[in-house]
Amino acid sequence: MNTLANDTFLRALRRQPTDYTPVWLMRQAGRYLPEYNATRKRAGHFLALCKSPELACEVTLQPLERYPLDAAILFSDILTVPDAMGLGLYFAEGEGPKFERPVRDEAAVKNLAVPDPSAELRYVTDAVRTIRAALGGRVPLIGFSGSPWTLACYMVEGGGSGDFRQVKSMLYRRPDLMSRMLDVNADAVAAYLNAQLAAGAQALMIFDSWGGVLADGAYQQFSLAPMRRVLAQLERRDDEPVIVFTKGGGLWLEDIAAIGCDAVGVDWTVNLGRARALIGDRCAIQGNLDPMVLMAGADQIRAETMKTLDAFGASAPGVGHVFNLGHGISQFTPPDSVAVLVETVHAYSRSLRQREGSMSLL
Amino acid sequence: MNTLANDTFLRALRRQPTDYTPVWLMRQAGRYLPEYNATRKRAGHFLALCKSPELACEVTLQPLERYPLDAAILFSDILTVPDAMGLGLYFAEGEGPKFERPVRDEAAVKNLAVPDPSAELRYVTDAVRTIRAALGGRVPLIGFSGSPWTLACYMVEGGGSGDFRQVKSMLYRRPDLMSRMLDVNADAVAAYLNAQLAAGAQALMIFDSWGGVLADGAYQQFSLAPMRRVLAQLERRDDEPVIVFTKGGGLWLEDIAAIGCDAVGVDWTVNLGRARALIGDRCAIQGNLDPMVLMAGADQIRAETMKTLDAFGASAPGVGHVFNLGHGISQFTPPDSVAVLVETVHAYSRSLRQREGSMSLL
Repeated sequence: MNTLANDTFLRALRRQPTDYTPVWLMRQAGRYLPEYNATRKRAGHFLALCKSPELACEVTLQPLERYPLDAAILFSDILTVPDAMGLGLYFAEGEGPKFERPVRDEAAVKNLAVPDPSAELRYVTDAVRTIRAALGGRVPLIGFSGSPWTLACYMVEGGGSGDFRQVKSMLYRRPDLMSRMLDVNADAVAAYLNAQLAAGAQALMIFDSWGGVLADGAYQQFSLAPMRRVLAQLERRDDEPVIVFTKGGGLWLEDIAAIGCDAVGVDWTVNLGRARALIGDRCAIQGNLDPMVLMAGADQIRAETMKTLDAFGASAPGVGHVFNLGHGISQFTPPDSVAVLVETVHAYSRSLRQREGSMSLL
Repeated sequence: MNTLANDTFLRALRRQPTDYTPVWLMRQAGRYLPEYNATRKRAGHFLALCKSPELACEVTLQPLERYPLDAAILFSDILTVPDAMGLGLYFAEGEGPKFERPVRDEAAVKNLAVPDPSAELRYVTDAVRTIRAALGGRVPLIGFSGSPWTLACYMVEGGGSGDFRQVKSMLYRRPDLMSRMLDVNADAVAAYLNAQLAAGAQALMIFDSWGGVLADGAYQQFSLAPMRRVLAQLERRDDEPVIVFTKGGGLWLEDIAAIGCDAVGVDWTVNLGRARALIGDRCAIQGNLDPMVLMAGADQIRAETMKTLDAFGASAPGVGHVFNLGHGISQFTPPDSVAVLVETVHAYSRSLRQREGSMSLL
């Protein structure tokens, strides 16, 4: 349909053979890059950067200029949807995201409605279109959203949290209310992701950043089921692959693989070989280097990167693996470390395939 | 040896049959209790409370006056050992623990030495003796320590951390230095726990609060192996059971069960039935209610508590299960909620055993 110069990422998500293991990094357009900080400064503040399609496009492409990454990801925030619901997203300097009007009671939940992506979230779909044009088919563009549960965490807590007391209080006291909120969130996320697809996103990722704080049982009910509801509503005309990433969800890989996604993101606590044995016949796997490895020297970065590629397993090396960090890249990462990482993923994963190729000739 | 009025907790840790499932709560002597806050106020500050054997004894016993808990746990802090190493532990108001002299370089690591528990940590063993006398054999007393890795996190970071950047940088850059530090920590923890045993602790718990932030592989090397080193050095004259609790360690239960502990603590992300199937033939299991359940009403607390007891499994109900939360109790917990929890654990677990008893008569 749309010709790509490099479709390795999409092929890996579909578990098709590739010449090497594709790599991109969560938060690859971020504060570790001086050029990102310069654009952000020009924008004035973080939200202005998100809300300008031109500037969002500019920072989306910056890491691709530096490194031969195999995918671009829409530059945006995971909290655009609740912002569009009217909760008043803002960023206090030096703190994380906050909402002016957190959702704490029944009345507030009942007031929630699915925002129209073509109105309140137009700046996002405009960014998708702008980025697609600027990419010119170099690599695929990933669209994304926070998961319904992760959005609910911020919406109820009103910001980040250490113990998730407010949102879990609502969950345990009023599961009916929590479910109602998650239904709205799921429908809002689905509409949002569909708008991104229509605008040109070639793959999607759902960031379930806070699914891992839930108890077994509660996770399935309050995070996984709403994500299934999202997936069921997606209109994927080109069979665009969807990645679901629950941070701290390593105990639930089989549950996640069953909701209809194409790939499961895993953090660094997961053994990639074990993950592949559990779900590799159904889903691709994305991950999972500890971002803090990038604080070490080049030799250690190479060694840990190779260890991660090896962990995925020797048979059919790398088929169904997308290399990534296990979480967003740290703002304190030296940019040169990323170059070492990307180069190692490409070179070493090629050599693994060649080794298997020559072995199969014996 | 020492006669106990209630040895249910010790029997459960040894996987012997019990009349009901024993229960205690991490941080059961804590800020949710008004009487604790009163004593703490009298002490002046938190560390003064830890360092006074009489006041530590007073707060240790407070929850036992309110609730029919099946174990007491020494009131202390997990950072007493690095404090005794001379790092200067202090608590800034409203913040977590901090160290005046964090361990950041080779020289600082090489300076570390195992403190003499009979000198710098005398206040802890005095507290153990005082509490044992005051308990008069009602229930067993648990001694505890932070794990070598968890101590290292605070020692290197100099306090709490969101990304563990400093300690992981040392780990990935200088694994030799990190291993040296962990060896000292392990030997210090072993000496500390042995002193607690000698003073009368009847069970031990190792809190590996931050093991779960490590990557698969790094966990086994930098958290589990040092805990194994601790266990190998313990002098358990009465076969005192040892519980190892890695928060976020649900993916490594079989590895943990193999290091020589009697019980494995699990947080709420773990399915208790699955944990039992994996390691129940070797270890007891402690856990795992989400502390935030206690923010709900009495009916929901009862339902979630029963669900937790049921999850452990119907066959030989409760054998080898110690009920606990999956993490420390929140300071915002209504004290009456704890009464509901403890009562439900006792009553419902008794009924499960009676049901099985009557079924086996059929």
